[in-house]
Amino acid sequence: MSPGTRSDADWMHAAIALALRGRALSSPNPSVGCILVRQGRVVGRGWTAMGGRPHAEAMALTAAGEAARGATAFVTLEPCAHDSQRGPACADLLVAAGVARVVIGTLDPDPRTNGEGAARLASAGIAVETGIAEPAARASLAGFITRQTLGRPFVTLKLATSLDGRIALADGSSQWITGAQARAHTHVERAHHDAILVGGGTYRADAPRLDVRLAGLEIRSPRRVLLSRMGDAPAGWTALASPGDIGSLDGVDWLMVEGGTEVAAAFLAADSVDRLLLYRAPVLIGSGKAALGDIGLDRLADAHGRWRLTDTRLLGNDRMESYQRIR
Amino acid sequence: MSPGTRSDADWMHAAIALALRGRALSSPNPSVGCILVRQGRVVGRGWTAMGGRPHAEAMALTAAGEAARGATAFVTLEPCAHDSQRGPACADLLVAAGVARVVIGTLDPDPRTNGEGAARLASAGIAVETGIAEPAARASLAGFITRQTLGRPFVTLKLATSLDGRIALADGSSQWITGAQARAHTHVERAHHDAILVGGGTYRADAPRLDVRLAGLEIRSPRRVLLSRMGDAPAGWTALASPGDIGSLDGVDWLMVEGGTEVAAAFLAADSVDRLLLYRAPVLIGSGKAALGDIGLDRLADAHGRWRLTDTRLLGNDRMESYQRIR
Repeated sequence: MSPGTRSDADWMHAAIALALRGRALSSPNPSVGCILVRQGRVVGRGWTAMGGRPHAEAMALTAAGEAARGATAFVTLEPCAHDSQRGPACADLLVAAGVARVVIGTLDPDPRTNGEGAARLASAGIAVETGIAEPAARASLAGFITRQTLGRPFVTLKLATSLDGRIALADGSSQWITGAQARAHTHVERAHHDAILVGGGTYRADAPRLDVRLAGLEIRSPRRVLLSRMGDAPAGWTALASPGDIGSLDGVDWLMVEGGTEVAAAFLAADSVDRLLLYRAPVLIGSGKAALGDIGLDRLADAHGRWRLTDTRLLGNDRMESYQRIR
Repeated sequence: MSPGTRSDADWMHAAIALALRGRALSSPNPSVGCILVRQGRVVGRGWTAMGGRPHAEAMALTAAGEAARGATAFVTLEPCAHDSQRGPACADLLVAAGVARVVIGTLDPDPRTNGEGAARLASAGIAVETGIAEPAARASLAGFITRQTLGRPFVTLKLATSLDGRIALADGSSQWITGAQARAHTHVERAHHDAILVGGGTYRADAPRLDVRLAGLEIRSPRRVLLSRMGDAPAGWTALASPGDIGSLDGVDWLMVEGGTEVAAAFLAADSVDRLLLYRAPVLIGSGKAALGDIGLDRLADAHGRWRLTDTRLLGNDRMESYQRIR
């Protein structure tokens, strides 16, 4: 494909890929991606830095320098319109840099910006388009959007099972059902989450292992949260009494629930799972520990229409599947 | 692809596809496929007829007539070398027809033919090649080969589960977990089996439904077998006391085990399952009926290396997967 033939959606997907670099590092801000393109060539790239500043647009504009003049900016989230003690509004930076056109993945649900950033760009004579590759842009911002709209993190429930849905033998042994590649994938997923939540049984069995064990990514181990009716947290952990309390986890937009059976069922019963991350090994276990306890399902018909497959791949002998809650 | 560029393996796969037409209809003979090709064009096709005769080669030679002279015959199984009251040996028919070359998928494990058919062709001056697309040819003949080598039918265990491995709610309701397309696929699978086996619980719940309910294929409903320790069979059914008795099912080379939990576990515990046919719906059930009971697994390590994925497809919202036992 020659450079000039890429569509706006192609560039937006490239910006979304950049945004992933800052995921679960950019708190308290969402991780945004920005690409500046002039005459079909990339002149600047940016993503939200660790800690939330600089913003993606500022980083891309700094990289482009004078080349930003007349360029098109592809940005996954509407540029902010509010000045902050931590830096100027991105809409103003784009105007000052002389950008000719801004293509936006999705508008900012933050009431301080919602539509205001796009309006400020337009009033400065910049061509503005919104809603480009919007489902993918929103998926990349799901933690932030869920926090803004539901007041809680986006919740991924991870399960690793046999073909017959078991997570362990009857004696509790579960090392290993899935292979090395699937387990490495789980560690990348952990690095993309702000916090990881488990119940008491998993805490007692696996606490030392609930980190990112990929060379170079150890510092991206998420915060650790224990679901415990007692509410008492071990050192280095946060305790919550129920799934309904996850909104109180400051700075946590992406939460991964990793076990065990009753915790997973409690989140599902509360309809607080937004994504299922399943790893399935080509083994049969038979009698053993089931993946889920009671999720409050009374009629089979109610189980349908809730989950849509959004990604699947083979990892060694195992299959990964990602399902999104249909809301 | 121009006609002349097809490889021997391509033609063999076409012959294998023809063989499927006779599957579970050709008892007491295996269903074989045969294609006669001259100068890159098909001049005759055949597959084993209902009841086992005529054989595939005889049907293809009849279709080709004089055009068989100088042709290449692609046949999934070694042509038979033994005369029978029901017809002449296929090796002799091929020689008499003046075929120039015979390409064989796999040799016949039947001791009356094993290697003898190929030898008779060669001694008549026909070029013979064996082992072309052999894994696929053997898979299409698995019922026959398993009967010859293990003295029992090839066993497919079918399971329809939720994502969490449940086959029903706690109250037993299971209609429906999978959708209409997956259920139609099951009916095609039934039509490709000589017999279907269930346990007492499934018999009592579903007996009237254990047939092929696809318009035009009703007559291909398999024989029905009940696994029952008591050994007493209802009218129209055959009763077996244990999985070890399936070798006694005369004329049954392809057996499908459809339920329930304990029957499936008993076959797995006896290592008498050759293929898993899984249908998985994008639903979660939580507490409910597990797919499998105790299969006698003591150590997780023993569960690995037993199953290889050989086919998968989406059927509506459901995923079908086929796994073959690695032996």
